[in-house]
Amino acid sequence: MSQMVGSQSIQFDEAPYILGSASIVGKKEGEGPLGGLFDVVGEDDKFGEDTWEEAESTLQKEAATLALGKADVKKEDIRYIFGGDLLGQNIATTFGLMELNIPLFGLYGACSTAGESLSLAAMAVAAGYGEHVLAVTSSHFASAEKQFRFPLEYANQRPLSATWTVTGSGAFILGKRRAKVRVTGITTGKVVDYGIKDSMNMGAAMAPAACDTIYQNLTDFQRQPGDYDKIITGDLGTVGQGILIDLLKEKGIDISSVHMDCGIEIFDSETQNTNAGGSGCGCSAVTLSALFLPKLEKGTYKRILFVPTGALLSTVSFNEGQSVPGIAHGVVLEYAG
Amino acid sequence: MSQMVGSQSIQFDEAPYILGSASIVGKKEGEGPLGGLFDVVGEDDKFGEDTWEEAESTLQKEAATLALGKADVKKEDIRYIFGGDLLGQNIATTFGLMELNIPLFGLYGACSTAGESLSLAAMAVAAGYGEHVLAVTSSHFASAEKQFRFPLEYANQRPLSATWTVTGSGAFILGKRRAKVRVTGITTGKVVDYGIKDSMNMGAAMAPAACDTIYQNLTDFQRQPGDYDKIITGDLGTVGQGILIDLLKEKGIDISSVHMDCGIEIFDSETQNTNAGGSGCGCSAVTLSALFLPKLEKGTYKRILFVPTGALLSTVSFNEGQSVPGIAHGVVLEYAG
Repeated sequence: MSQMVGSQSIQFDEAPYILGSASIVGKKEGEGPLGGLFDVVGEDDKFGEDTWEEAESTLQKEAATLALGKADVKKEDIRYIFGGDLLGQNIATTFGLMELNIPLFGLYGACSTAGESLSLAAMAVAAGYGEHVLAVTSSHFASAEKQFRFPLEYANQRPLSATWTVTGSGAFILGKRRAKVRVTGITTGKVVDYGIKDSMNMGAAMAPAACDTIYQNLTDFQRQPGDYDKIITGDLGTVGQGILIDLLKEKGIDISSVHMDCGIEIFDSETQNTNAGGSGCGCSAVTLSALFLPKLEKGTYKRILFVPTGALLSTVSFNEGQSVPGIAHGVVLEYAG
Repeated sequence: MSQMVGSQSIQFDEAPYILGSASIVGKKEGEGPLGGLFDVVGEDDKFGEDTWEEAESTLQKEAATLALGKADVKKEDIRYIFGGDLLGQNIATTFGLMELNIPLFGLYGACSTAGESLSLAAMAVAAGYGEHVLAVTSSHFASAEKQFRFPLEYANQRPLSATWTVTGSGAFILGKRRAKVRVTGITTGKVVDYGIKDSMNMGAAMAPAACDTIYQNLTDFQRQPGDYDKIITGDLGTVGQGILIDLLKEKGIDISSVHMDCGIEIFDSETQNTNAGGSGCGCSAVTLSALFLPKLEKGTYKRILFVPTGALLSTVSFNEGQSVPGIAHGVVLEYAG
């Protein structure tokens, strides 16, 4: 049986394995530092569809299909999907995964959804609710800009604190069959609000939530930062990274030597004009699949803490003057030999 | 240990109990046939807030707080919240539940979210991931109209097939401590698309999904309709009810004598001008809490199948010409003596 540890975490005794994963990204992501690592790089960000939203749906479908192939699992053998995206009413997920014909739990945790979906997928497998389950998330630069900021045609300027929503989808097949990497624990995040009201500075909005979840993970599991080869946040970017490290130092914890952020890794901000870094549900999902999982599979990393971070706002809440709270969900991944 | 049964269901051997629940609704719901049953009826649909969205957040917070009181559980003893609403990026949930300071899994299943949240809450408790968890959902007529259709000020006419979004929130505390009602099983729904493109006829869009989930539930558990005292859909309304009963008859199953629909129960459509009935995440949640749970607690009903139904669309997907697929999540509730 699995155990509740501390106040917000679970340790899985029969920890589920990651049987396979896939990453599919857009053109700009393919031109970035991780370009050679993704499974598929699209040549056209519409991915053959008529709208940005349909393109994002196609990303999810393709990522899921590819992950099934790599895991050597048939779609009929997937008991549940845990999926989500950033769009209102999760339409990328609905229309992307419909054809798979698999029971679906739709999730919304903003850009933390990659962590939320992996957490619930691991909980389901560890409890014996499914032999295999699928966790999948996506984001798309153009559908997100339309949803949250301005239509691309408006060509607004972007402040330096802004991040660039990643066009991409990452899919993960979890199951009981032995493989190289296990999800050994999770730390589920609370909504944390520091009163940030700048929707162009998501890193600052999410850093307190990342701090809270990382601190709680270390406390619940009685670990030090050095017990992880890497502590990897989702999409804080350079501005959020600085804040996170400072906030944890105030609590007497120094993660500076082990911290990485998917949003910082995925783009070269100097040449790619991405300002503070990449963001979006897809950002952490594709970076985990393409960059970090292979290192765990080889044993280069023995244990990492993966902490996708989400900024909880909508255009409605923002325009009504609400703050932008954050949430972060932690997932412990370990090399299984 | 719990068992997977059939292709989409779980039977909980150590079935979680519903320790308490609460319902809070708006003025119009209070004037309807169930008016005397709700825990709280607001006199003003803004519930003391400045915006409809903040009002909906207040509904969730109040419902959750009231349910905790009725269950005699402290908020510090709730391990997880499974919550959601209909608004873009789940803002009613985020801002409503933030103060509770409890780890949150944000969900989106349109109006099926009441079923999704109860399912995941039951899965979590049955697996030993938490002694107590909270499932909460909401909807608000005014925030939903603004989100999905027209601002109230526009005063558009509504077709007879249209439903009326319920202003309300229902909250449920699940746990291991013995109580009168248990969640003994779940059947998780797939996205089902019959190509309906009329956003004013949600009942027709959702009926095929309800049919699919009910059929699968009966198959997986090897039950007949008569094995349930009631099979209760969320918000099909009168139009959707007729379609559901016909679709199941085509499969050789007659649920007409046991079927009820929360959307039909909550309003008197003749005097309240609600056309096909009530709808929204809040509709099924408050009706379960106020009308059906008390009958289970008294043993009037021994076993019901509760099937909240969701129409998966956004204004973006609708305006881009996409169909309105449905999803429905089944929850089996039994009198525990």
